[in-house]
Amino acid sequence: MSLIEALNWRYATKKMNGQPVPQEKVDQILEAARLAPTSSGLQPFKVIVVTDPALKQELLPHTFGQSQIVDASHVLVFAAWDNYTEERIDEVFNRTNAERGLPAEATADYVARLKGMYLTRDAQVNFEHAARQAYIAFGTAIAQAALLKVDATPMEGFDSAKYDEVLKLKEQGLKSVTVLPLGYRDEANDWLAGLKKVRQSKESFLIQH
Amino acid sequence: MSLIEALNWRYATKKMNGQPVPQEKVDQILEAARLAPTSSGLQPFKVIVVTDPALKQELLPHTFGQSQIVDASHVLVFAAWDNYTEERIDEVFNRTNAERGLPAEATADYVARLKGMYLTRDAQVNFEHAARQAYIAFGTAIAQAALLKVDATPMEGFDSAKYDEVLKLKEQGLKSVTVLPLGYRDEANDWLAGLKKVRQSKESFLIQH
Repeated sequence: MSLIEALNWRYATKKMNGQPVPQEKVDQILEAARLAPTSSGLQPFKVIVVTDPALKQELLPHTFGQSQIVDASHVLVFAAWDNYTEERIDEVFNRTNAERGLPAEATADYVARLKGMYLTRDAQVNFEHAARQAYIAFGTAIAQAALLKVDATPMEGFDSAKYDEVLKLKEQGLKSVTVLPLGYRDEANDWLAGLKKVRQSKESFLIQH
Repeated sequence: MSLIEALNWRYATKKMNGQPVPQEKVDQILEAARLAPTSSGLQPFKVIVVTDPALKQELLPHTFGQSQIVDASHVLVFAAWDNYTEERIDEVFNRTNAERGLPAEATADYVARLKGMYLTRDAQVNFEHAARQAYIAFGTAIAQAALLKVDATPMEGFDSAKYDEVLKLKEQGLKSVTVLPLGYRDEANDWLAGLKKVRQSKESFLIQH
């Protein structure tokens, strides 16, 4: 199946049937998120994988009762860095240079410029930037799920502060930004399953120069 | 080629060879962006496709001289809505209901709630939200390019205000957020081509519950 076919097949599943997604498919979806490009390669986010039924149940009211949270076998929570810090930036470039067999000097000027920009900026501006990077990975994960015929519902309708509390994200310098439950559609009971996918026309979506 | 293989194959190409990407492949990449899911299906962004050599040349200094802008055959500029407005929201739901053969009442309550949230929020908050949606499509476009073995360089290193001026985006209520030149790698002259792709380990990237 081509990616275009897969993206046409997928939809924001509103009712899942409880059937679990095989771990091997979940692993591929997570790998597509891990491999996503990010600004300067910083990967300023993590993915929390929730499979524990009690924890999913705890998240349910903070997701305004949307049943995918409990009917999905795996709930992925994308959580962005609350800020860029010297330690976080150093960790990435130390690791990158080590894996590439390069000395620290190889990236010294670049890292200095990066720190000059990030460390002088407001935490909220940095968080918004980190959140955007998480959304690139959100996009590649959604693409991979669709290619594997796994249903995935992109969800922003949740109480981010409550998620951070339940998942203890604040202590880790993270803030939840978006959620992706993985499972299988319950077509008979999903009001959205039969409705046509609607998008802007190409003519409206694109501006050609 | 699987998406995982494709994402491992791709890298942020620093030097392109000037060979044009066939229109049929460009169309598939744009289609992957158009089909990306967005919050409430609003698609609060557009993609500007720049092929005019003079215009690419004009964008070059505002991209800090990064040569992919002129060596790419197609430069995609993702530009988000500067704000959510009543007109924009109505246009989407009127179109969606019309295409689904549903009356306006079908979404009236939902649209009222949406407007209650968006239209009372600061423009900057709404723009940041719209930008995130554009990044989902950025992710699916990057995935599609890699699957087609088209090189694409995710770029945030550009002067957004200057891009908006050159591309007359402000007049259209848009703000450029990210750029994706499409072309082919010039491996012999690209310092990044031979370097190992580095990512966080799975153990570091994932938090399992």
